Amino acid sequence: MEQLEHHDAQPPGSALRRWPNYEAAAIGLREYWYPVMPSRKLGRKKMSAARIAGRELCLLRENGKIYVLENQCPHRGIPLSMGSREFPGHVACIYHGWVFDVTDGELKHALPDGPDSPIRGTLCVRTFPAEERLGMIWVWTGDGDPVPLDDDLPEEFLDPAADIFWRQSDSPGNWRYAVENGFDESHGKVLHRNSWWLFFNRMSAWNDTEITRSEDGKWLRRYQRKIVVQADYPGLGQWPRFNFFQRRRKTVQQGSNSHAVDVRLPATLRVRQPGNANWTHYEWYVPIDDSHYRYTQVAVAWATGFQRLMWRLRYWTYILWVHHYGFNNQDLMVVPLQNPLKAENLFRPDVSVTAWRRFADREHRRPSPETKAQNTEAAE
Amino acid sequence: MEQLEHHDAQPPGSALRRWPNYEAAAIGLREYWYPVMPSRKLGRKKMSAARIAGRELCLLRENGKIYVLENQCPHRGIPLSMGSREFPGHVACIYHGWVFDVTDGELKHALPDGPDSPIRGTLCVRTFPAEERLGMIWVWTGDGDPVPLDDDLPEEFLDPAADIFWRQSDSPGNWRYAVENGFDESHGKVLHRNSWWLFFNRMSAWNDTEITRSEDGKWLRRYQRKIVVQADYPGLGQWPRFNFFQRRRKTVQQGSNSHAVDVRLPATLRVRQPGNANWTHYEWYVPIDDSHYRYTQVAVAWATGFQRLMWRLRYWTYILWVHHYGFNNQDLMVVPLQNPLKAENLFRPDVSVTAWRRFADREHRRPSPETKAQNTEAAE
Amino acid sequence: MEQLEHHDAQPPGSALRRWPNYEAAAIGLREYWYPVMPSRKLGRKKMSAARIAGRELCLLRENGKIYVLENQCPHRGIPLSMGSREFPGHVACIYHGWVFDVTDGELKHALPDGPDSPIRGTLCVRTFPAEERLGMIWVWTGDGDPVPLDDDLPEEFLDPAADIFWRQSDSPGNWRYAVENGFDESHGKVLHRNSWWLFFNRMSAWNDTEITRSEDGKWLRRYQRKIVVQADYPGLGQWPRFNFFQRRRKTVQQGSNSHAVDVRLPATLRVRQPGNANWTHYEWYVPIDDSHYRYTQVAVAWATGFQRLMWRLRYWTYILWVHHYGFNNQDLMVVPLQNPLKAENLFRPDVSVTAWRRFADREHRRPSPETKAQNTEAAE
Repeated sequence: MEQLEHHDAQPPGSALRRWPNYEAAAIGLREYWYPVMPSRKLGRKKMSAARIAGRELCLLRENGKIYVLENQCPHRGIPLSMGSREFPGHVACIYHGWVFDVTDGELKHALPDGPDSPIRGTLCVRTFPAEERLGMIWVWTGDGDPVPLDDDLPEEFLDPAADIFWRQSDSPGNWRYAVENGFDESHGKVLHRNSWWLFFNRMSAWNDTEITRSEDGKWLRRYQRKIVVQADYPGLGQWPRFNFFQRRRKTVQQGSNSHAVDVRLPATLRVRQPGNANWTHYEWYVPIDDSHYRYTQVAVAWATGFQRLMWRLRYWTYILWVHHYGFNNQDLMVVPLQNPLKAENLFRPDVSVTAWRRFADREHRRPSPETKAQNTEAAE
Repeated sequence: MEQLEHHDAQPPGSALRRWPNYEAAAIGLREYWYPVMPSRKLGRKKMSAARIAGRELCLLRENGKIYVLENQCPHRGIPLSMGSREFPGHVACIYHGWVFDVTDGELKHALPDGPDSPIRGTLCVRTFPAEERLGMIWVWTGDGDPVPLDDDLPEEFLDPAADIFWRQSDSPGNWRYAVENGFDESHGKVLHRNSWWLFFNRMSAWNDTEITRSEDGKWLRRYQRKIVVQADYPGLGQWPRFNFFQRRRKTVQQGSNSHAVDVRLPATLRVRQPGNANWTHYEWYVPIDDSHYRYTQVAVAWATGFQRLMWRLRYWTYILWVHHYGFNNQDLMVVPLQNPLKAENLFRPDVSVTAWRRFADREHRRPSPETKAQNTEAAE
Repeated sequence: MEQLEHHDAQPPGSALRRWPNYEAAAIGLREYWYPVMPSRKLGRKKMSAARIAGRELCLLRENGKIYVLENQCPHRGIPLSMGSREFPGHVACIYHGWVFDVTDGELKHALPDGPDSPIRGTLCVRTFPAEERLGMIWVWTGDGDPVPLDDDLPEEFLDPAADIFWRQSDSPGNWRYAVENGFDESHGKVLHRNSWWLFFNRMSAWNDTEITRSEDGKWLRRYQRKIVVQADYPGLGQWPRFNFFQRRRKTVQQGSNSHAVDVRLPATLRVRQPGNANWTHYEWYVPIDDSHYRYTQVAVAWATGFQRLMWRLRYWTYILWVHHYGFNNQDLMVVPLQNPLKAENLFRPDVSVTAWRRFADREHRRPSPETKAQNTEAAE
């Protein structure tokens, strides 16, 4: 396994500009599949609007299949999602009845210009590849040809025993601060210390963190080589101080959440729960624009029959409230407070942040220039 | 009658910049009389503020006559409309008691500097010609000498039998999209199809539209040479489909509203109601600034005695609710959704839009350079 | 005593740019002590945030002493005022537990990097000198070395008999318009004429105002050499007209408030109340940013024992309501209406405004270049 260097975090006080592609991606990396909307949110008749990675999308379901069009009529700019579905297989703009084929976005008719309108077939709205899978609607926002959706899914999602709970909410802040916060090893020891989740769990004072790669190369992983549960800080005293419940714990929450936290492109976090918890927490920080992201929390267990029932009970009575609301809302608070224009000063535990930045900067997917030219031209 | 060419609407996908004066007039064409405020809104004692075509106005009534001053004291910039009317024929600024003559805007006194203040007579606030007519206050916002108000009124307003109802509301959006929407022939067949107004009326599928001029050259008129009530659209089927009431109708609403729709400068629409309705609907899209306009709806009937009483009853019980609220609020919705920065693609029925744009671009009134220099200098 | 020239106010219509330092000081003059927050607003455990003269401040009380730090962690920019006080003498950032010494701002520990973190001692947050005096927390916002706080206090505040009431509220508008409004001689005769305060008091029509200096040179004073109670204005008649109560008054409120109004740097007004009122009104217009200021009203009487009790009763039942709310809220209204970009035209009574502008432009305190370089370098 590759090991990334520590010295990324040095020297303190250094300016940014060391990860130019990453810094340029304020509205998101586009050549990926993103989870846009839970299946249950998109009805059979209504259309929905969403902004993802700076793209305005019109989503609809037709005969059980999902279609996504650019959400702007080329005539006068009105959102197509306000339009009508009265013609099966088509979307009609609410303003002048321009009728588009949902499969390829072609302008099939402009109703008030009659059946022989010369504008028929001369214009298209852009379409985006979309799939419905695992209770979620996925959209490809890239200019290149889409990869198979499976390439952008954690492979354990494809296990038939996987039972998946999705929760999405739009939050202020840039998606990159949200990813960095998720993979950051050290903030959990401070920011989350007074969360309910940690009231009964023990967290260490500091660790020696190693950043590695998963065997398939897709995930960046942080692992603690050395864990120091409590330490004496000159001038401050012992830290942390444990409450009654924490003192009785033998196990230690080693990182910000657990002993194995992974991140992958485009903006996906995986937190394997420690010990015998037998479920895993995921997060997607889906970019909306440069100052908002669609925070996507996922809880997955692999269970069938009675075990699945018990898992669901546990999710609804405990995990949702303590973990998804109580714990992660502290993260939502700090993300928008970070100002990309101000200089930052990094320290040794930020090796997780800088490793992610380098990974994203260098290894994000990009379309071949020919494909991109071809695909964007076709849409205009 | 002049007929304007169809090919304005071609080719699809063309950029703007074909109507340079019109495109530059984001805050409105100024060398016109605008309906600013219904008479009943301006009291005898209070002053009112209004922003029209980017100008800040202070309106007041003195001895039954209307005066309009620039709404900004030249001393420290406080709006004069907050000031006092304690001296007849004058306005006193609320802050330091600078007293201006309402007829010419001259600074007559600066009270706390004593009766012999040397600043007397050295400054003016700009005044704007104003008239009260037909229940409305009209203001000339131009830099050139004002034309007679009658030149900017539809001449049928001057018929003593005219009974006029005004309704004004400030709306988001640029005034030009509001005019274009008003004169646009084709959107009514789609956008308004589900309004109450059309629930009992029949509207055609498509028309062949001709744009002409009124005999006095002031109005641009659209007229349907050919009307197709219903048509078969390959792949979609018959359109439109009529409900029970519409099927029983013999007459057809041919355009977006009616069989004769006219537009004139600066931003005035006329819709003669079909058949024996014997009333006419007008709209002024009075510019406020580049993203707001004062939407002005007018209903006029020519009637006296008992017929006038019946007309008023009809207006209050039916027209106001179904036409002014239900129908036109759909237009208010689409105007602010149009983005002037994005390319548009026009189609054949947009001949009404492009004819209006060319008309406004070429034939709008402008002051002679000498007059303008003289008038604006005098005000500074 | 120095007397400032009248001709500052001429010619009418002149542009700005005559007081370049003053015009540049949009966010405030920084080399001064400012009253930031009443003592009672800052608790023992909580920290408070304030923005003063464009600086973000974190205020805290430790062992009875006030400390002020720049309110931004150098790591990732999170406000320190959200952090924790669990280590006496230190502030810990809420996000990653960077621990700063409150006395000098030095980074003492970065908790999740262990007790031997190499970043210890390599960074500082800036600290600001602060003192708690007379029920108020005072902060030095300058880059130069602080002067003694007494230098920026009206010396009569140091009299042990002084009994001081503070009231602060944040208001829109630039601090300079607030000072100018406070020292302006003439607006009171117009703007405040209909306040409750003046309902029972007589105010003159116009005065001949003289601007002088206090003996110690710190205060600019306006004084009326000549007072004209009422005058005949050609075309307007007698002004002002007095009501029943005003006619019975023998004494005259000569200026906007009283017969002696003083102003000093940075932004401090003093209004000695007339006759036997034996209290004095002060205002500080503490700059927040270029469009907000912390309006600070102060009422002071010098009294002990029973007289102090009576003074307090009078303050709570009368002065607070009629003077602090009724009268001064009229000033709050006009300050944000003044637009720094528009040309102004000054008149003779603006001698008080221009004298203040020249005073502030030329005589404001500034740090020596060496001190400034040294102090700001140390903080970075």
